Amino acid sequence: MTTYLNGVSLPPSKRVSIFGGTHGNEMTGVTLVRQWIKNGAEVQRAGVLVTPFIANPKAVERRVRYIDQDLNRAFTPEILSLVERKDLPCEVKQAQEINRLFGPKGSKDAYDVIFDLHNTTSNMGCTFILENSGDDFILQMVNYIKCTLGQSSCHVLLNEHPELKYETTRSVAKHAVGLEVGPQPQGVIRSDILKSTRQILKYALDFIQLFNKGEEFAACDLEVYVLDASVDYPRDQHGDISAMIHPHLQDRDWQPLCPGDAIFLTFDGKTIYYEGEGTVYPTFINEAAYYEKHRAFVTTRKKVLPAKGVKIRTV
Amino acid sequence: MTTYLNGVSLPPSKRVSIFGGTHGNEMTGVTLVRQWIKNGAEVQRAGVLVTPFIANPKAVERRVRYIDQDLNRAFTPEILSLVERKDLPCEVKQAQEINRLFGPKGSKDAYDVIFDLHNTTSNMGCTFILENSGDDFILQMVNYIKCTLGQSSCHVLLNEHPELKYETTRSVAKHAVGLEVGPQPQGVIRSDILKSTRQILKYALDFIQLFNKGEEFAACDLEVYVLDASVDYPRDQHGDISAMIHPHLQDRDWQPLCPGDAIFLTFDGKTIYYEGEGTVYPTFINEAAYYEKHRAFVTTRKKVLPAKGVKIRTV
Ligand SMILES: [Zn+2]
Ligand SMILES: [Zn+2]
Repeated sequence: MTTYLNGVSLPPSKRVSIFGGTHGNEMTGVTLVRQWIKNGAEVQRAGVLVTPFIANPKAVERRVRYIDQDLNRAFTPEILSLVERKDLPCEVKQAQEINRLFGPKGSKDAYDVIFDLHNTTSNMGCTFILENSGDDFILQMVNYIKCTLGQSSCHVLLNEHPELKYETTRSVAKHAVGLEVGPQPQGVIRSDILKSTRQILKYALDFIQLFNKGEEFAACDLEVYVLDASVDYPRDQHGDISAMIHPHLQDRDWQPLCPGDAIFLTFDGKTIYYEGEGTVYPTFINEAAYYEKHRAFVTTRKKVLPAKGVKIRTV
Repeated sequence: MTTYLNGVSLPPSKRVSIFGGTHGNEMTGVTLVRQWIKNGAEVQRAGVLVTPFIANPKAVERRVRYIDQDLNRAFTPEILSLVERKDLPCEVKQAQEINRLFGPKGSKDAYDVIFDLHNTTSNMGCTFILENSGDDFILQMVNYIKCTLGQSSCHVLLNEHPELKYETTRSVAKHAVGLEVGPQPQGVIRSDILKSTRQILKYALDFIQLFNKGEEFAACDLEVYVLDASVDYPRDQHGDISAMIHPHLQDRDWQPLCPGDAIFLTFDGKTIYYEGEGTVYPTFINEAAYYEKHRAFVTTRKKVLPAKGVKIRTV
């Protein structure tokens, strides 16, 4: 990366992949990627190799989130460096395979961009999940999409939280882009969710093409939601859930939540109120896959992130 | 059953059970039954033994629909009469156990009523699934609920279809009552869905108590939706799904569907229209669990079902 007056010049993005099925029951990515494997014209861009890829075929085949463990948490240095053995968990072997095909993670040979398509049962609309506030290229990409489709077309969840950050499937690439779209039940294909995912991806790929052709993107500010805390369900003395998401919180992803607002309703009808600090913006509210992770929702805080200008580096 | 002037007199309903978790990832019934096992006061009625019961504990524990096969299809004479063996599929053993505890199916010793609580990802609201148009007792129960909570508080799907009817878990009882409530994703507990399920059950149990105490329920007419046909997704030459539920059909359970209306949208953007006979009322639209059963939705036809008057038989 070299800087110019008020920006950074970056190498072109030539190798891009679109992952579906990192979680085998999140059907929009599975469906789109299967179509693009059959006929990828829609996602090809001049000068860019775009590879659609089913990330966890065994989980997709059984239409379950994972076989042995969550693939989207498996890209740690320890796991990626484990000696190959037949009896390794399915997702450990798959993570190592993905690292071979699209990595190695952290090396100059890694793919430039991986888009990882997910669905959520939460009412999150289209949400970019980003892992690096210093990745001006991706910040500019999201800004381009927001400017094209409208500011409310998508949200940005920035996860740089020391404890809550995890080693995602897409982290193998130089630029890791998670796209979480909902609400959609596990195992279901909704046409409205497929349409909005497809549209967001179109403009993301357009951005890459424009960038590669030399278009400059001026410095800008991007509204992001910074991951703040994970909130579990209230539990009884046996560790069993004793309350559900309160009706006043259900489906209100990205809406302000203030101290004293209702967050849970116990099964015997008592309300539990939010007691955190200041206004937060909850999301991943009532995500089916997070019950086992002891997570009812996460809180985020709004932040305006400055993104440097970007343009292609002409060698 | 003996008849009187314009009705039938029936024995009291003394033994009632409420099943949750026939499908292990349908969480409203699992949650309510777990609560009622801890503290069942809410569902007890004078003179009636009400037994909350988790129908498929192993599937509930793993939060999956089933372990080996769909329990809700396992109550056939063949399965119930299989010789006990250790290696029988999990749900075969469980069906035989339920038949021992709450049956035997078809005998005078069977429980009087079993309510079987299900959830659906389809926008069906509260739907009673009934299997016998001659069961005046249950028709009167549903009518009582509709009169109390409002006609639109619930729908009635009547499944007496020669090919589409199946041997349900609840069919072990003299009176089998399925309650399907949605939309709710698999694995999720929504407070609005829990509330409406709980309310419907309250009035169902109240009806039983009133009946047992001697209240007479006059002959009435009940609007039901008779199961007509099952419609699969369009598929390509490999048998893979090639279209999704059309946006104009999605979430429109129980709304009239006429020949020429859109039902599917192919992944490359073509609309497929309904070509059936006359107006039908689709339901189970885009149910996650029915992809594997090759069912995109079912069609039903509206019918007004006369129910005889019912009162308790005084011996
Ligand atoms: Zn996911
Ligand atoms: Zn069910």
